[in-house]
Amino acid sequence: MILPPIPTPFDREGRLDTEAFRELAEALEPLVDGLLIYGSNGEGVHLTPEERARGLRALKPRKPFLVGLMEETVPQAERALLEAQEAGAMALLATPPRYYHASLGEGLVAYYKALAERMPIFLYHVPQNTKVDLPLSAVETLAQHPRITGIKDSSGDLTRLAFYQAHLRDDFRVFTGHAPTFLGALALGAEGGILAAANLAPRAYRSLLEAFRTGRLSEAQALQKRLFPLGNLLSRGGVPLLKQAMRHLGLPAGYPRPPYPQESPIWKEFRPVLEALKEEGWLL
Amino acid sequence: MILPPIPTPFDREGRLDTEAFRELAEALEPLVDGLLIYGSNGEGVHLTPEERARGLRALKPRKPFLVGLMEETVPQAERALLEAQEAGAMALLATPPRYYHASLGEGLVAYYKALAERMPIFLYHVPQNTKVDLPLSAVETLAQHPRITGIKDSSGDLTRLAFYQAHLRDDFRVFTGHAPTFLGALALGAEGGILAAANLAPRAYRSLLEAFRTGRLSEAQALQKRLFPLGNLLSRGGVPLLKQAMRHLGLPAGYPRPPYPQESPIWKEFRPVLEALKEEGWLL
Amino acid sequence: MILPPIPTPFDREGRLDTEAFRELAEALEPLVDGLLIYGSNGEGVHLTPEERARGLRALKPRKPFLVGLMEETVPQAERALLEAQEAGAMALLATPPRYYHASLGEGLVAYYKALAERMPIFLYHVPQNTKVDLPLSAVETLAQHPRITGIKDSSGDLTRLAFYQAHLRDDFRVFTGHAPTFLGALALGAEGGILAAANLAPRAYRSLLEAFRTGRLSEAQALQKRLFPLGNLLSRGGVPLLKQAMRHLGLPAGYPRPPYPQESPIWKEFRPVLEALKEEGWLL
Amino acid sequence: MILPPIPTPFDREGRLDTEAFRELAEALEPLVDGLLIYGSNGEGVHLTPEERARGLRALKPRKPFLVGLMEETVPQAERALLEAQEAGAMALLATPPRYYHASLGEGLVAYYKALAERMPIFLYHVPQNTKVDLPLSAVETLAQHPRITGIKDSSGDLTRLAFYQAHLRDDFRVFTGHAPTFLGALALGAEGGILAAANLAPRAYRSLLEAFRTGRLSEAQALQKRLFPLGNLLSRGGVPLLKQAMRHLGLPAGYPRPPYPQESPIWKEFRPVLEALKEEGWLL
Repeated sequence: MILPPIPTPFDREGRLDTEAFRELAEALEPLVDGLLIYGSNGEGVHLTPEERARGLRALKPRKPFLVGLMEETVPQAERALLEAQEAGAMALLATPPRYYHASLGEGLVAYYKALAERMPIFLYHVPQNTKVDLPLSAVETLAQHPRITGIKDSSGDLTRLAFYQAHLRDDFRVFTGHAPTFLGALALGAEGGILAAANLAPRAYRSLLEAFRTGRLSEAQALQKRLFPLGNLLSRGGVPLLKQAMRHLGLPAGYPRPPYPQESPIWKEFRPVLEALKEEGWLL
Repeated sequence: MILPPIPTPFDREGRLDTEAFRELAEALEPLVDGLLIYGSNGEGVHLTPEERARGLRALKPRKPFLVGLMEETVPQAERALLEAQEAGAMALLATPPRYYHASLGEGLVAYYKALAERMPIFLYHVPQNTKVDLPLSAVETLAQHPRITGIKDSSGDLTRLAFYQAHLRDDFRVFTGHAPTFLGALALGAEGGILAAANLAPRAYRSLLEAFRTGRLSEAQALQKRLFPLGNLLSRGGVPLLKQAMRHLGLPAGYPRPPYPQESPIWKEFRPVLEALKEEGWLL
Repeated sequence: MILPPIPTPFDREGRLDTEAFRELAEALEPLVDGLLIYGSNGEGVHLTPEERARGLRALKPRKPFLVGLMEETVPQAERALLEAQEAGAMALLATPPRYYHASLGEGLVAYYKALAERMPIFLYHVPQNTKVDLPLSAVETLAQHPRITGIKDSSGDLTRLAFYQAHLRDDFRVFTGHAPTFLGALALGAEGGILAAANLAPRAYRSLLEAFRTGRLSEAQALQKRLFPLGNLLSRGGVPLLKQAMRHLGLPAGYPRPPYPQESPIWKEFRPVLEALKEEGWLL
Repeated sequence: MILPPIPTPFDREGRLDTEAFRELAEALEPLVDGLLIYGSNGEGVHLTPEERARGLRALKPRKPFLVGLMEETVPQAERALLEAQEAGAMALLATPPRYYHASLGEGLVAYYKALAERMPIFLYHVPQNTKVDLPLSAVETLAQHPRITGIKDSSGDLTRLAFYQAHLRDDFRVFTGHAPTFLGALALGAEGGILAAANLAPRAYRSLLEAFRTGRLSEAQALQKRLFPLGNLLSRGGVPLLKQAMRHLGLPAGYPRPPYPQESPIWKEFRPVLEALKEEGWLL
């Protein structure tokens, strides 16, 4: 499965644009296997609770979708949990509490168990953003819970994926969120990718996955090599670069919320990479 | 000036207890020079916007107070900014945006300037919690803004304080938030402390500050040495330990919000330190 | 190619045992494609220049071998360079200067170019030990030098391998030194492994490599999964664990040099992993 | 006490210049309380054992001196230990083993105890260079050994100094190696400084120390503030900058050993700082 973490569009003044949001989701959905809403590139942490609810209501996904949650405590998570459930999300993708992480201790496992009382949960390890660890020992414990059914690991630390492959139950679902090492992650057991780059080149990543799954390894390697610069620059440029690139392709992705920059400092480096892939027919 | 960052009381189920909050503030205020509300130990990030407003309205501080803000974007900050202003805060103490910090760039300076359009701002550097840097070059730029009037630096990195002393304008106000190095910070130009430990031993930290300011250096050193274990263990134990210690002293500090643990794993190590200081008359 | 970084045997008092060294090399060599001497697990940094020369002279490898070098300056490297050349090493595997790395600057590239004046050089990136970076930009520059012909990358950071695959010339030789992600590294273009674990299970790693190269992907994945605990624990346990395991298998690997511990604290966890693999016939 | 860690002069081709070394020591010694040879700025790790011995024999210090040692194992340390003892060093200043630090464990304490069998030892914590920790718990243990008599702490982490002040025996000698926080370190109990900057401005640092010790705190603060840029830039520039500045002042400090750069990239920023201090009479 390839899922893009769709961006949440704001206008130039920072207002949430729910119409653009719906259009964007509708443009992407036919090209992929599902969506991640409010994920690593979805600026969920940039929304007030009201905006968050309003945005989610504006979307009518037909394919399976995940909803991201980056909260700090159980009581704060409750509203978003309810709303994700009502919207019909296949699971909630939740990061660990962050701000007081150093004194969280056993609370880390307790947090996920509390969330899982309500609905299926995917663990979300994205230390570039959260700056906290999700220890392998905690993943191992949590993966035994019947409603904790998967993980998105965006760390790019493939030792973690090798650990999941070797130590977790076979039906625990592993997705990588790190495009630059995508083929490596597949070799180490990931079932698919939830990749910012899949907002730009959904077909290409689906082709790579398909080549790998059908044993056409040198084709998969050629695609991995071809797509590396796209994923690698996007990792560096983050949301401002992703939105700029999507706008460049005519998609209603909007702007990052202020004070985040509206133009990426590496757009000049990224643009030729993007255009070359476009010419070869890899972009949406 | 010595200001405690007062904790925000929750009951055992995680509900905000505004009455306890007011009592706590009233108990502490006479012993200190002012308060920090929703700061490093105030769990501001553990409140919904409504709760945050409700808690602030419950307090009626008579001494100067700061209000902490740990938001991600300008639009999200607006409500809290307005409420702090209405409540009469002397300044808003604001951390940098965190989640997408890697792509913030010039947005860091833009963020603080946007906040400062409304009211006086203190910069807040507390990387243990935010996990992001507030670069010295940005501090140097921002300290030139007429409404950015001070900084609380909780990093314990005293090279930063030495930098402020050497390179910032004389009336830029520097507070340390790091008790274990308090006397070092004073020697390097800090005017006072905003210290979790001042929730427990306000008199002791005021005595230390007074000894330093009046040139009684060996007395200041003796107090620094005496108080080191208190501040050092509290740095390690964080909010769960602070609240447990305050409850132990009979203060209505309540519990950390779930899933944070209600008892600290280092309470056993901390308790004798606390009780010895209590016997010597240093606690409130 | 699978090469083990053979350990350098010391007796219990810390004396270099050249006879054991030669025996060990002779026991391993037939099972692998070559050797790395004084590499990541070879304690080259634990030898005086005289001992280093004496050890190398004691060996008579018949297969291709690399010699590791962890020096700080060009003049200090000269003797070892000469000795490796005389011994017939296929290349010198050199880490960057470490101690004053922060002020090395352009000296990093200059260092490798100076070494390459004499003989073929492999870059050696092993930040767990060196604690310094070998920036991708430097690798890209150095890979254009005709006598800098390969790299051993032990970091386990597979983004680096994906970068090599996408950006370096096709005949630049890439070896991983990180067993836990071995199959991921192969998928991302590594030609083989220089793995501590290949001192224990040379046949198993050669089988994994062979399965991958001949397109038997699910067999390769099964082996990767099977071998993960071996490589992963060995990464954590380092030289003391490797030597203890080799002694346990009857190999003359000796002891780490004092003050390094003679027994590993994770031997108890490692032993059953080792014995299970032994029963299945995977060890040498 | 103020001691400079004197640089070891190499000529432009990287040859050790023992005559310059002796001249340099003789020029500095009258202005300070003693010397550190082969310390943080002495490039001890850039010498072969023979050169190291030759350099040490060339010096005839009259004041107390320390000799630095950055070895990896006990057997490798033995020769340098003997030579330091014969030369009459007041103590050996030794960093922890580095390369396999992750598997050192109890060996850390064992290492220092083995060294202390021969002569007085100072612990040396300089993580900028060694990239390893010297845990406070190990310092606490080692400070009880009768021949482990002091520490040089160059980390700039003043929580450590506060810990030493609060938890170690009163006669354990603490020196800071971090000029930018010098006055903070004194307030937290350091008895003096072993400072690269004291190679350039020995009188200034002695004046600062004297002002502090005689209770002239605002004078000490003024000097701290005045000297901050010198120490701070020197921390960033390291050996290449120190040597360039000393050459600029006419001292026979020579050049860093290749491949280290002969000119510092921040010399242009440093030079006006240096010259302003020179005009005010603070340099040697």
